[in-house]
Amino acid sequence: MPDGWTIPAARQGRRSVRMSGFGDATAVKQVDDGRYEAVLDGDFGFAEALNGGYLMAVLGRAAVDASPHAHPVSTAANFHRVAKPGPAEVTVESRKQGRTAAASLVTLVQDGRPVVDALITTGTLDAAAEPAWTGEAPPAMPPLEECTDFRPPSGDGFADRVDMRFDRSTMGWLDGQPSGRPEIRGWFRHRDDYAIDAYSLALAVDALPPVALNLGAQGWAPTVELTWHMRAVPAPGWLAVHGGGRLLSDGWFDEEVEVWDSAGRLVAQSRQIARVPRLRS
Amino acid sequence: MPDGWTIPAARQGRRSVRMSGFGDATAVKQVDDGRYEAVLDGDFGFAEALNGGYLMAVLGRAAVDASPHAHPVSTAANFHRVAKPGPAEVTVESRKQGRTAAASLVTLVQDGRPVVDALITTGTLDAAAEPAWTGEAPPAMPPLEECTDFRPPSGDGFADRVDMRFDRSTMGWLDGQPSGRPEIRGWFRHRDDYAIDAYSLALAVDALPPVALNLGAQGWAPTVELTWHMRAVPAPGWLAVHGGGRLLSDGWFDEEVEVWDSAGRLVAQSRQIARVPRLRS
Repeated sequence: MPDGWTIPAARQGRRSVRMSGFGDATAVKQVDDGRYEAVLDGDFGFAEALNGGYLMAVLGRAAVDASPHAHPVSTAANFHRVAKPGPAEVTVESRKQGRTAAASLVTLVQDGRPVVDALITTGTLDAAAEPAWTGEAPPAMPPLEECTDFRPPSGDGFADRVDMRFDRSTMGWLDGQPSGRPEIRGWFRHRDDYAIDAYSLALAVDALPPVALNLGAQGWAPTVELTWHMRAVPAPGWLAVHGGGRLLSDGWFDEEVEVWDSAGRLVAQSRQIARVPRLRS
Repeated sequence: MPDGWTIPAARQGRRSVRMSGFGDATAVKQVDDGRYEAVLDGDFGFAEALNGGYLMAVLGRAAVDASPHAHPVSTAANFHRVAKPGPAEVTVESRKQGRTAAASLVTLVQDGRPVVDALITTGTLDAAAEPAWTGEAPPAMPPLEECTDFRPPSGDGFADRVDMRFDRSTMGWLDGQPSGRPEIRGWFRHRDDYAIDAYSLALAVDALPPVALNLGAQGWAPTVELTWHMRAVPAPGWLAVHGGGRLLSDGWFDEEVEVWDSAGRLVAQSRQIARVPRLRS
């Protein structure tokens, strides 16, 4: 297993955390105009690094709360520093108020420093909208019962919160046999009864192991930038999460994720650019 | 021709502008710590709306000038208002200084209001880097002599500055026969002798007509968000620009662009999300 996927001793011995749901873990509380407080839940990450999708869900809630619209339609996030479990501040600065969309700069702050900056556009998607045109769906994933649920042997909080079932053909890297194709696919749902919504999509677009693991990348791959767009209001049920990439060069790689809902709709799409520490020689 | 592609009378009668090169048109002049001045060139747009790629080139120059690194590796831009030809201010606020990458919030300001916000990560790409892995190249484009250069009959400044030759099979929308596939492809170079570089890539990722025109979209499609990544230092010569999309729904559509250089390298990739005013019934 790549280094980044082992759980340090400190983490294994972490004190038991409250098993609140995804809603509580991403809640924000307004304390002033454009200022929110959050308590970041250490379960949504690996080791002491919180998951970027989880952080985007928190930022999205603040952006929507401060806007007249219902959904975080577009989120472009820069990850500057590692976010730590515990208290954080979220600031929302309005940049544009429009009839169909509003834009704001949303920042997660810890220890007085910006941890994540995001440009978030809010809008209100029509849950009944029928696509005017959709591209081809990705190849169907294997049924749930043929997938593997991959929990790190030492345990981790993320797998306590998110139920993911991976297409085995994309998990060869786990056994030291990366496929050579930067693809990882899996089913996704919350372990609690939180209904799949916009904030679930924020989590889903960054929930896969880095696809570069299948190119022999080792260790953790820190995300530098991730942009995702919410394309439709997701139907209840499992999400299918398809990850791919186009280029690994000069220590940088891109990862694209498409999320399809149980009704067969493309509900979210993302691209991130990340650093690859080193390749297996 | 869709409405957005006609040139209003006011534009046709515009006064002749200086025919400076792309370098001059995107130049920024530092006036204070993190503050730059630019003079936006009306030729880089259609009607009175300046091209988003051109604006990102200007912002990228300011970001790189204020950073220890050489290239705008990642740019996530929100387009709030229409930028007008003439003077503009560019502010650069550092958010993270790193050894391999630095991040800043870069804003184009006119009339005291934010026109474009961009989160820009700078880094220094190695011009000699060989890709560790690359995905399949898109299908080859027709040779230049089989392409069409499409200049709006009323003339426009953009075509005076940028030489684009389009794959005819993707230009049916011009004759009222959209292909039904959201794809437009073309060759790209500057008309002056400016050598293709990072800032050329910023222009190239937003230089195609909206791919939704091939789905029957009419009128202009304002970009709400565009993220692009510079993946390699481009070789001299023509760029191949491949535009596609995945979903048009609820008035929103996405457009992905890949830019390949004359050496056959993927040098830039982008996705934008835009509003579609209406579809041809």
